Amino acid sequence: MNTKSTPPTANDTLSYEQAGVNYDLIDPLKVAAQRAAKATGAHLATHGFTEVEASRGESAYVVDVGPFYIASIVECLGSKALVADEMKALTGKSYYDGIAQDTIAMAINDLITVGATPLVVQAYWAAGGSDWFGDAQRAQALVAGWKRACDVCSVAWGGGETPALAGIVADGRIDLAASCTGLINPKERLSVGDKLGAGDAIVLLASSGIHANGLSLARKLVERLPNGYLTEVEPGLTYGEALLAPTVLYSPVTEALYKAGIIPNYCANITGHGWRKLLRHPAVHTYRIHTVPPVTPVLKFIQQHAKQDDFEAYGTLNMGAGFALFVKAEDAERTVAVAKAQGIDAWVAGSVEAGPKKLVIEPLNIEFGDDALQLR
Amino acid sequence: MNTKSTPPTANDTLSYEQAGVNYDLIDPLKVAAQRAAKATGAHLATHGFTEVEASRGESAYVVDVGPFYIASIVECLGSKALVADEMKALTGKSYYDGIAQDTIAMAINDLITVGATPLVVQAYWAAGGSDWFGDAQRAQALVAGWKRACDVCSVAWGGGETPALAGIVADGRIDLAASCTGLINPKERLSVGDKLGAGDAIVLLASSGIHANGLSLARKLVERLPNGYLTEVEPGLTYGEALLAPTVLYSPVTEALYKAGIIPNYCANITGHGWRKLLRHPAVHTYRIHTVPPVTPVLKFIQQHAKQDDFEAYGTLNMGAGFALFVKAEDAERTVAVAKAQGIDAWVAGSVEAGPKKLVIEPLNIEFGDDALQLR
Repeated sequence: MNTKSTPPTANDTLSYEQAGVNYDLIDPLKVAAQRAAKATGAHLATHGFTEVEASRGESAYVVDVGPFYIASIVECLGSKALVADEMKALTGKSYYDGIAQDTIAMAINDLITVGATPLVVQAYWAAGGSDWFGDAQRAQALVAGWKRACDVCSVAWGGGETPALAGIVADGRIDLAASCTGLINPKERLSVGDKLGAGDAIVLLASSGIHANGLSLARKLVERLPNGYLTEVEPGLTYGEALLAPTVLYSPVTEALYKAGIIPNYCANITGHGWRKLLRHPAVHTYRIHTVPPVTPVLKFIQQHAKQDDFEAYGTLNMGAGFALFVKAEDAERTVAVAKAQGIDAWVAGSVEAGPKKLVIEPLNIEFGDDALQLR
Repeated sequence: MNTKSTPPTANDTLSYEQAGVNYDLIDPLKVAAQRAAKATGAHLATHGFTEVEASRGESAYVVDVGPFYIASIVECLGSKALVADEMKALTGKSYYDGIAQDTIAMAINDLITVGATPLVVQAYWAAGGSDWFGDAQRAQALVAGWKRACDVCSVAWGGGETPALAGIVADGRIDLAASCTGLINPKERLSVGDKLGAGDAIVLLASSGIHANGLSLARKLVERLPNGYLTEVEPGLTYGEALLAPTVLYSPVTEALYKAGIIPNYCANITGHGWRKLLRHPAVHTYRIHTVPPVTPVLKFIQQHAKQDDFEAYGTLNMGAGFALFVKAEDAERTVAVAKAQGIDAWVAGSVEAGPKKLVIEPLNIEFGDDALQLR
């Protein structure tokens, strides 16, 4: 059993830290911000409301306003747009319709983890200068993709910001983010993990590829590939195209589940830190995986070329599973059926057990301990 | 009477367009986005809700969820942080506590225009690399200022994003934005302008300086100043320090007004486009100003050194008035008193009249016509 809490560092392994993101520098700020933010929750009493304290540290912040809960969030795309820019230069195509979906997915897929129905999305498109918006094909792709993602999730696109930020955003680039507001209605839909417990089944939903996390690593890897982004992952599919598969929008599944009478006890959006996100809830449980979904070709390709073992790969990337639903055991098979009816593949992958906090992926003979994920 | 719809272009006048923001390139995208966004409003019916259509084109988007309205928004700081960076290099001080307040003010001051009580703010802090967060003094100032602004506005800081976006955000810089969600409760507080009409008084609230709009112009101007940012605006106050006065947070005033039984018929946050924002509402009214607030020294300084006439200056900058309240005439004096009790200076500055759509600033002998502001 591999129980390392830090990734292996063989000389030619490409880890996430080596790809340029240094959490040691960001984390002290994050801790200070979280502490300060927590102290502001009491302000809601001024308005007659209260925060759902258990939502601090979860993927979306929840406020109890009486008849229902309000959830809100802001989320960043990350560096995936840089891949779209490189691929545009190589192929002449604009990939910003997919990039728009990725950005919305980052917000929506986090918001739904707490049981919210997303209602309104706001667009944050900060360009390196006015001329970014002058490329009509690209700008129209961004608008069209943004609208289509809103249509898929039945959310209203409320508006947003399109600033030109020369000197702050790099020339020719765009910083994309989305904010999202939703309702948890009825209030029984709240899923912040208090009902999560031994005996629950873990259902995994298929990803479409790398989604929008791990892109720093994926971009770094290009230097090692013979034809860069045009290297084929499988016949007819370039690495660049495969990376740009838009992130799956999971809210149609969570909405369909509610209509089918299934309320998950907890949800985890599998983003940065890969499957370690299954350990997200602070309670002490053992998560035992007996079935591992097929690995999306581009993720298998990354694992091979970055020379990552399964511990590193599953601790960094989604490896074919983009979202986890923790449901009552008797709801597990029906949860899979509901997801499939929405066109999203799903597997009953494991179960929650009483025991020390760890994630055991039995088919791969790896496990992640309590110290593998420090998000709070 | 000066009724030009475009600014004068004397050879040495520094206009906003000359300062590098080209709206001709951004506007086609904005129009396409607004059209696409509008088409998504109908999705709310899926969830049993409706949008407040009149909020499209206003500063915040409003949804009717039954017992109250929900308002939401995402707003960008813009380029003011670049001034903080320059001043840090010159003085060694960190100004990011004020920058944090500016960022929150951009969101809060827009959200309250529709009558909303801000409840939750989310932070979007996208840095050019992990090391931005490694400057502990600056990072702590950002956290402390963000928290203090939340305290002033009695909002909960829900959380946020602190991505490191090397290659997208410029090295050493940070792209700051805030999203905000609030409630309009009771629903009578909704102010989207349907009650705005002839006879209403216009009350202006004092600004603290340039706030966070017009900074491209203000930064460009530095090239013309003998000592750059250290040039004195008045004895003991440098241009850089004066620019960095944090934006006034106006939600304590709108909340106090409601408690005093005053519900504005309309509000305008005076940001980009300066006083032209008084023409924001699509209805046809004449807005006649009889009293002009004293001009904040830094704004007078900018006007002089950029060689702007009043038409250009009032059409670009807030010129001492950061927020406009359109209230019933009989509420006007009391509105001023309520604002002053919150420590914010205020003036009954004019009135709404039947007539063609224009803003007449009588003391300055200028007016802006219907074509002066194209926001929808």
